[in-house]
Amino acid sequence: MLITELFNIKYPVVQGGMIWCSGHKLASAVSNNGGLGLIGSGSMHPETLEEHIIKCKDETTNPFGVNVPLLYPEMDRIIDIIIKHGVKIVFTSAGNPALWTAKLKKHGIKVVHVVSNVKFALKAQEAGVDAVVAEGFEAGGHNGKEETTTLCLVPEVVRAVKIPVIAAGGVGSGAAMLACLSMGAQGVQVGSLFAATEESSAHVNFKQMIINAREGDTQLSLKKHIPVRLLKNEFYQQVKALEEEGGSAEELAELLGKGRAKKGMFEGDIANGELEIGQVSSQIKEIKTVEQVMQELITGYNRALTRIQLLDHYR
Amino acid sequence: MLITELFNIKYPVVQGGMIWCSGHKLASAVSNNGGLGLIGSGSMHPETLEEHIIKCKDETTNPFGVNVPLLYPEMDRIIDIIIKHGVKIVFTSAGNPALWTAKLKKHGIKVVHVVSNVKFALKAQEAGVDAVVAEGFEAGGHNGKEETTTLCLVPEVVRAVKIPVIAAGGVGSGAAMLACLSMGAQGVQVGSLFAATEESSAHVNFKQMIINAREGDTQLSLKKHIPVRLLKNEFYQQVKALEEEGGSAEELAELLGKGRAKKGMFEGDIANGELEIGQVSSQIKEIKTVEQVMQELITGYNRALTRIQLLDHYR
Repeated sequence: MLITELFNIKYPVVQGGMIWCSGHKLASAVSNNGGLGLIGSGSMHPETLEEHIIKCKDETTNPFGVNVPLLYPEMDRIIDIIIKHGVKIVFTSAGNPALWTAKLKKHGIKVVHVVSNVKFALKAQEAGVDAVVAEGFEAGGHNGKEETTTLCLVPEVVRAVKIPVIAAGGVGSGAAMLACLSMGAQGVQVGSLFAATEESSAHVNFKQMIINAREGDTQLSLKKHIPVRLLKNEFYQQVKALEEEGGSAEELAELLGKGRAKKGMFEGDIANGELEIGQVSSQIKEIKTVEQVMQELITGYNRALTRIQLLDHYR
Repeated sequence: MLITELFNIKYPVVQGGMIWCSGHKLASAVSNNGGLGLIGSGSMHPETLEEHIIKCKDETTNPFGVNVPLLYPEMDRIIDIIIKHGVKIVFTSAGNPALWTAKLKKHGIKVVHVVSNVKFALKAQEAGVDAVVAEGFEAGGHNGKEETTTLCLVPEVVRAVKIPVIAAGGVGSGAAMLACLSMGAQGVQVGSLFAATEESSAHVNFKQMIINAREGDTQLSLKKHIPVRLLKNEFYQQVKALEEEGGSAEELAELLGKGRAKKGMFEGDIANGELEIGQVSSQIKEIKTVEQVMQELITGYNRALTRIQLLDHYR
C-alpha cells in the first residue's frame, strides 16, 4: 500500500520529525504542500508539544503527525496529549514499539516505527505498526550500529516485512526519491532538506552551516556511546580527538554533556553545539521554502523516471 | 552515453575487478553473459596478468577489461602487457589518473577511473578518462575517507561531471541497480555478487563466509591506515580492539602486515586472513553461476521498473 493511501496525503513524502527543527510551522507547511508533516516531540516538554499540536491544527486541515522518541521521559503525558488532541499519525523511534503501539492503535492512530535493521523491522511489524521507516547510515542524527546504508537496508527490509516501508537517509533530490521507490519503498522520509527550509525552527546559524557543508563534512560519531551523525564543527573535533585516543563510552558521554543539541541547532552556537544533519547536507546550497523543496522533489522524481528505460529481456 | 554503447556490451553491468576473485574465468563469464568482465590485476604479478588476458581472449569474443590499481609496483610492465595484448578497456583505481590515461588512450583504450568523491571525479575527467565509477561507503575493499554512501555520492558526481558515471557499492539486486540508474548513473559496477559466484577465483571458504554474512557483519576498518571494508572475522576483531584502544596508523599497518588478503580470500584462512566484501554480502544466500547473477539483475531491474509510476504533476 502506497503511503499516500495509508496517510491520505498527495505525495509519498514524509518530513522527518527532527529535534529543534520540526515545530508546527514546518509540519503544517509540509502537510499543506501535499506531504506528511511531523512535529518532532523529541525536543519538546509535553506542554510545548501540546501548543504545537494546537497551532498545527489551526494551520492545516491536512493530515499531520507527531514523532515520538520512545526513550524520552514523560511518555505517558506525551501519549495522552496526542490522543486528547486527536492526532491521527504517530512515528515512534528508539525504544520498544511493543510498549505503546496497541494503545495508540486503539485510539485509531496510525503508528509507524523507525528502524535501522531488519531485526527491529520485524519486531515493529509484530508489535502491530502500520509501516516502518528504514533509515540508513547516511541519515543525520541517531543511527544504527550496523552502519547499513539506505541502498543496502531498504531492499532487505522490503523483502522481510509485509507492511509498507518508508526509506530514509540520503534523500536529497527527486532522483534519490525515485531510487528509494525503485527498491520497493512506498515512500520516503526526508530530514535534512527540510531542516534547512525557512519554515524550520532551527537557528539560522545552523541552517547556514548546512548550506556551507561540503562532501565529507558530516561523520557518524560517538559510536561507543550512541552513534549520531554530526556536522564537523569544533565540538565534533573534540569528540574525534577523544575517540582517536581511545576514550571510553563514559568519557564520551561526559564530553557530550547535556543540552548540546539545543545549544547548536536551536540557539545557534555552531562551535560548541551538537549539529545533527545528514550526508545530503552537501547537496543543499540555499535556504528554500517548503513549497520549493516539495516541488523540486516531485518534479525531479518525474523527470528522473522519464529518463529510465527497460532493458532487453535476458536471453 | 549509456555504458552499453561506450563498451559495446548488452547490459550496463560491469563486474568489479576485485583482487583474488576476478581472474579470466570470472571476467570471461561476465562478458559472455552480456556484461563487462574485468580481470583484477591488483593481486597478480605481470606474468600472471598476461596469462589471464590470453586465456580470457580464448574464452570470450566479447569486450572485457583489466582493473589496474595505479599505486602498485611494476606499473610500466602491466601497462605494456595490456597494450601488447590489445585489451581495449582499462579501469584504474587508487593513484593519479593523470599518470597513465594519455598513454592508454593513445593506444585506443577506453579508460575509466574509480572515485569516491566529486573532487577526484573532476580530476579524472580532466585527465581525459571516458567514464568514472562512483563507489560508495557500502562497497567492499578500499573505500573513501568521506564515507559518502552510493545514494549520496552518485547524484553529486552525476551533477559534477559530463562523462558517464557508473555507480558502485550496494548493488545487490536488480532493484538496487534500477535505483542507481534512477540517480543518473549510466551503469553499475557489481562486486560482491560476483565474488561469490562459481566462476570467482576466491577460495570456497571465503565464498562460504559471504553466504553466511548477516546484517552488520562488515565494517569499514583501518581508517587511520587505509580505509577498507572487512568481514568481521578473528583478524577484524584484533583490528577493532587495537582501534578502540587508540592504536596508531603504524601499529595498525604492522598488525595488517603483508599478504593477509591473499591468505584469507585466496588461500581460505578465514580466521587470520583479510576478507574484503561489501555490505550487500548479507543479501547473498548461495553460490550461483555468473549467468544466474546476470539474469537476476536484469529481470529484477525490469520487474522493479514496471512497479514504478509517475507522481501527479506538482500543482
